[in-house]
Amino acid sequence: MNAVGVIVEYNPFHNGHAYHMEQAKQASGAEIVIAAMSGNFLQRGEPALVSKWKRTEMALKAGADIVFELPYQFAAQQADIFASGAVSILEAAGCRSLCFGSESGQMNSFRQTLSFLEKQNDTYQNRVKFHLDEGCSYPKATSLAFCDIQPESDMVDLSKPNNILGFQYLKSARNQNASLNVLTVARKNAGYHDEQFSSDTIASATSIRKALFSENGEIEAIRQYVPETTYSGLIEYKETFGGFHHWEDYWPLLKYRLIHLLPEQLETIYEMEEGLEHRFLSAALQAETFQQFMELIKTKRYTWTRLQRACVHILTNTAKEEMPSEPSKASYLRLLGMTKIGREYLNKHKADLPLPLISRVSSRVSDHLHLDIKASRVYAMGVKGRQQQILLEQEFKQPPIMI
Amino acid sequence: MNAVGVIVEYNPFHNGHAYHMEQAKQASGAEIVIAAMSGNFLQRGEPALVSKWKRTEMALKAGADIVFELPYQFAAQQADIFASGAVSILEAAGCRSLCFGSESGQMNSFRQTLSFLEKQNDTYQNRVKFHLDEGCSYPKATSLAFCDIQPESDMVDLSKPNNILGFQYLKSARNQNASLNVLTVARKNAGYHDEQFSSDTIASATSIRKALFSENGEIEAIRQYVPETTYSGLIEYKETFGGFHHWEDYWPLLKYRLIHLLPEQLETIYEMEEGLEHRFLSAALQAETFQQFMELIKTKRYTWTRLQRACVHILTNTAKEEMPSEPSKASYLRLLGMTKIGREYLNKHKADLPLPLISRVSSRVSDHLHLDIKASRVYAMGVKGRQQQILLEQEFKQPPIMI
Repeated sequence: MNAVGVIVEYNPFHNGHAYHMEQAKQASGAEIVIAAMSGNFLQRGEPALVSKWKRTEMALKAGADIVFELPYQFAAQQADIFASGAVSILEAAGCRSLCFGSESGQMNSFRQTLSFLEKQNDTYQNRVKFHLDEGCSYPKATSLAFCDIQPESDMVDLSKPNNILGFQYLKSARNQNASLNVLTVARKNAGYHDEQFSSDTIASATSIRKALFSENGEIEAIRQYVPETTYSGLIEYKETFGGFHHWEDYWPLLKYRLIHLLPEQLETIYEMEEGLEHRFLSAALQAETFQQFMELIKTKRYTWTRLQRACVHILTNTAKEEMPSEPSKASYLRLLGMTKIGREYLNKHKADLPLPLISRVSSRVSDHLHLDIKASRVYAMGVKGRQQQILLEQEFKQPPIMI
Repeated sequence: MNAVGVIVEYNPFHNGHAYHMEQAKQASGAEIVIAAMSGNFLQRGEPALVSKWKRTEMALKAGADIVFELPYQFAAQQADIFASGAVSILEAAGCRSLCFGSESGQMNSFRQTLSFLEKQNDTYQNRVKFHLDEGCSYPKATSLAFCDIQPESDMVDLSKPNNILGFQYLKSARNQNASLNVLTVARKNAGYHDEQFSSDTIASATSIRKALFSENGEIEAIRQYVPETTYSGLIEYKETFGGFHHWEDYWPLLKYRLIHLLPEQLETIYEMEEGLEHRFLSAALQAETFQQFMELIKTKRYTWTRLQRACVHILTNTAKEEMPSEPSKASYLRLLGMTKIGREYLNKHKADLPLPLISRVSSRVSDHLHLDIKASRVYAMGVKGRQQQILLEQEFKQPPIMI
């Protein structure tokens, strides 16, 4: 069986994702789709709307055949490390191709950009350093540096965040000598960060989340943008757990943590750079909400996303030495769910998988999964009472979702 | 001016406390009363009902002239360390005597017990060890050891918890070569731990707290047992902060902390003995309330109080090396409040005080007070919203209460 891999967060799964999976199958000629999906905390440094188990169920019901967890050490990370972990999982899972969505849908532009940047690397890095020294954030500095080196017209514009992940997938595949073929298909409507609905059926996950959290946030309002299975899944989750996970639910915990840690303890946390710890502490003492806190700590030097990720690491007590600080490969395949066809595929390939396949967390494997287990437990603290216990216990009790 | 010292928690201040202050003045011939009062967390390992500032105000309105804070490093401690810190504060404050309440009111019995135990120390320590090895808790082992060595009839019964603190005050005063005179006066009614009301005007703080937290806990129910100033103070605090501080308010924070710490991190916390950390973690994963958690971790080996104190230290992230592990002296006098007469007394003695007098927390002194500041911030997290900010900021902004 020929499998195509996709790298996703599905927060939540919407029509654009379904369209992407179809296109990926077509472009690659694959029969099955394997998703490397972020766990409970996401790349933007946010808790996922609903748990990874519910998101797995939604993905499987809408076309994915196998879902592996992108472990915390890659999921809550900057683009290059995120990409390296995800690509290594899809490669290890035996995917013949990896397919991502882009505006142009032209793989050639990505390849040319990569070659060009490899050749111009010294100049490019100098320009990045120059802009960092000017006080820009890292993404801003790379974006400006890219413009400085005058890319040719048939390249992708890496000053647009949309294109950066795709570029990093290609780069990771090349650096890892992956045998999978990297493909891209054109996205349908809706930019990645659009906050407004602009089509009848396709909307960005950002605009969907915004609608769900709006003042009289009725799930009904997003119905047309998501498969029926997402719609009913969201309703069910909200009924069971009392709502969707939101940073504000974790704010009392983050605030508590910030006010009882010494600056030198805060400094051991991943992505906490020197100088940030005093800023974080003084903001925590002033802010009543997470939003207020973020506004107090935001500077030109750090993006909102980067600061939110630091907050996630503080919340999960993740130390610098626990995280890869540069692109690297995953060390296990954590199976979150599969369809019948996905199961056939796995049965066939199980013996040749280069990484351990973990379908159930036990004390035997829990050391490897330490960060994922901790992240899931902290994620559970966002809900109250009996429901919290369900989420707390799920990490050890939940078998892979089968549909 | 002749000052008598008292060692208190005032949780909350009640008629028995008022009676004790009067008696203390009479017995000592003192004109003013100086209280060494626990801060926001108490010896039994509990948050105080209301903040140390409110408790200071109540104490001053009901007869105390000066209130010093018994720092966290002594307040949330076993009896001997608690006593050593408190005695050293009263001695440093220039008290000519220290007066505690006891059932017998006979100082001689305490003195004889101390001499007897000093003589019999080896035998006594052997018996303590024997009972500890049998699996008893430390207080139980000392209580049994005391019975084993057949104390004479004119001694105090140290198998009764009521007598232990008084005994430790005397012992600390002797060990510190304190010049203050240790006195005792007979308590009026109500045993220390009585849970029921048994008199018309005197009730134990335990029974008062129980009434306040009972299902239809009306403050009215305790009116007859407390001075009018306590009554109105409690009403005011409840109106401002939405209720009284209770362990259950801090349970989400303690649970969060337990589930994200590694056992080896938990082991660095004061009073966490080897082996307890796994027990704590597994109980945290199961318990929905603090009460359930405590019932899960309770064993014969550790008293409820001891375990609650460990919980407080986990909550405040207080490491073994931050706390004195044996009796020692305070290094500062933190002034929480004073009356006009108290102020006169301090003005007179200010120049001769052997310890720094801290009446306002500033960055200059905040290192010394690190544990008290942290404890107060954590204490603030027990209330919500705007009110939390008031408590959070109080540690730096609040001048001593003056009445």
